[in-house]
Amino acid sequence: MGIKDEFDFINKISSNQQIPKSVIEGIGDDAAIIRPHHKMDTVVCKDTMVEGVHFKRETMKPHHIGHKALASNISDIAAMGGIPTFYLVSIAIPSTWQEQELLDIYCGMSELANQYEMTLIGGDTVSIEGPLVVTVTVLGEIEQGKVLKRSNAKPGDFVFLTGNVGDSAAGLHILLSDNTSNRKHTNLLNRHQLPSPQVKAGRILKGLPRASANDISDGVASEAIEIATASQVNIVIDEYAIPLSEEILSFGRKEAIQWALYGGEDYELLGTVSPENWDQLLLEFNKENIRITHIGNVVRGTGRVFLNNNGESIELKKAGYNHFG
Amino acid sequence: MGIKDEFDFINKISSNQQIPKSVIEGIGDDAAIIRPHHKMDTVVCKDTMVEGVHFKRETMKPHHIGHKALASNISDIAAMGGIPTFYLVSIAIPSTWQEQELLDIYCGMSELANQYEMTLIGGDTVSIEGPLVVTVTVLGEIEQGKVLKRSNAKPGDFVFLTGNVGDSAAGLHILLSDNTSNRKHTNLLNRHQLPSPQVKAGRILKGLPRASANDISDGVASEAIEIATASQVNIVIDEYAIPLSEEILSFGRKEAIQWALYGGEDYELLGTVSPENWDQLLLEFNKENIRITHIGNVVRGTGRVFLNNNGESIELKKAGYNHFG
Repeated sequence: MGIKDEFDFINKISSNQQIPKSVIEGIGDDAAIIRPHHKMDTVVCKDTMVEGVHFKRETMKPHHIGHKALASNISDIAAMGGIPTFYLVSIAIPSTWQEQELLDIYCGMSELANQYEMTLIGGDTVSIEGPLVVTVTVLGEIEQGKVLKRSNAKPGDFVFLTGNVGDSAAGLHILLSDNTSNRKHTNLLNRHQLPSPQVKAGRILKGLPRASANDISDGVASEAIEIATASQVNIVIDEYAIPLSEEILSFGRKEAIQWALYGGEDYELLGTVSPENWDQLLLEFNKENIRITHIGNVVRGTGRVFLNNNGESIELKKAGYNHFG
Repeated sequence: MGIKDEFDFINKISSNQQIPKSVIEGIGDDAAIIRPHHKMDTVVCKDTMVEGVHFKRETMKPHHIGHKALASNISDIAAMGGIPTFYLVSIAIPSTWQEQELLDIYCGMSELANQYEMTLIGGDTVSIEGPLVVTVTVLGEIEQGKVLKRSNAKPGDFVFLTGNVGDSAAGLHILLSDNTSNRKHTNLLNRHQLPSPQVKAGRILKGLPRASANDISDGVASEAIEIATASQVNIVIDEYAIPLSEEILSFGRKEAIQWALYGGEDYELLGTVSPENWDQLLLEFNKENIRITHIGNVVRGTGRVFLNNNGESIELKKAGYNHFG
């Protein structure tokens, strides 16, 4: 691998950190020790990104890779309503990667981590004869009894979506295309390379008596199906209510909707809330300047999702979207 | 990858688990939620095993790979004095691996996990065009203020070692050798393929007013140097006190000592305790039927480790042992 001295490398990636009081032992011993806050539960998740499967070197610079590997995990914490606090990174490094590129990966992570006052507390670096593999574990905390479970949806609920969807897939499309004139859409490229997890939105939602949420990692269709299945309800989405940016609409409405439904990696939140909480929720989202849109409704059912368009209704399926196909 | 239906696969690997009350949300949502016990700190560590670097298919069956990937992490928790409680598994799967082999990996983990009443609470499965990569995160708990830090060693302390060392490297040597007659040493093969982390030993040690510990993942030399460096002391080890099994001595004393010093993956504990606690410690280890040996002493110094042999003293260095070299 491109690291000459692992000890020196770990020093470089961890020396600038502010260490909070809740870290009893940080990086450097066999394991880290952290002190949970009183009456808070621990939230924990883990996601892997593989070169050639989840990203290519042509579409993602090292600091994008680091940012996104951490962002996708923070997004999972956000989808539960939690506050991200700590992270661990395991990285399997091919000999073709240079130390500076690896430092840039960690730099991409720490820039995002700093926004949330998160601390790197462990992990490891190993070599591999194959593609780069980054596995991030994120720990967070949430008030006891407050969780945005997928199984929380009930018939009559509003289905909501934060921000816009489809932008990340459009950004990837531009990066993979030979048509370089589309590179002017820097917002779409940023949505793909430097996605923003919706922690604030999750924190507002967890304040409600009941809400469900999923983060958009696999596209609106897949996430809605997961909530419908876990809650044993049906979900009906109005196609024209799905929030799309002007930029992706410039590629045509048909393409834009496909990206929204099946593209994924937008890391917005999709979920359900009771209609009686909607006005209050709008107020709180407005106060934080976060966009939230009512895109459909929950009805009785058995885990199916339908898309309404001009009176026609089609059932959505968990179609796999092949990023590099 | 060899998994037809990820949902079905996750069901297969998690359906037989006993779920303790401290798991508020297990596998199946964006993240897991667990409730920390009162006055306990959280211990967390993460280790990656890469095919071709940490194991080969010729030397490790799938259930060995699973067992060892989890064991190496439990061993890190043990070396802090903690109790392992939960684990998350990320696995990057080449298309050449069959679903049954992958299930065997998880089975190797869950057999070991059951011994410690540990619960699988998350992770992910992704595909890779390259070798198999398994990353395990283990969470545990430890009484507040009780940690076997590497920096806890003081001049005058006894240096101890649990069990025997060198067996794992000997087992690997046998597995890689054409001389199949040595395969009769099943104990050595087991020490390599199915290592036992020393959780009980760690729990006894954390009861002392002060102790340091490292688990033997990289060999006695490397682990002793880490303790000496972190504590800013020197360590002097008596070569003839290092506990070696009769089986590895049958390969010659010189080879056996090299395996002990530089082989690693024995997952025994090496550490230091005050001499005034030694007799009590021996009693408690005897009660639990765990072997512990006084192999040297801590002296004033600056992070160096020496090996005494018949009046000669040589300094030990962090020599990298190339498993498949």
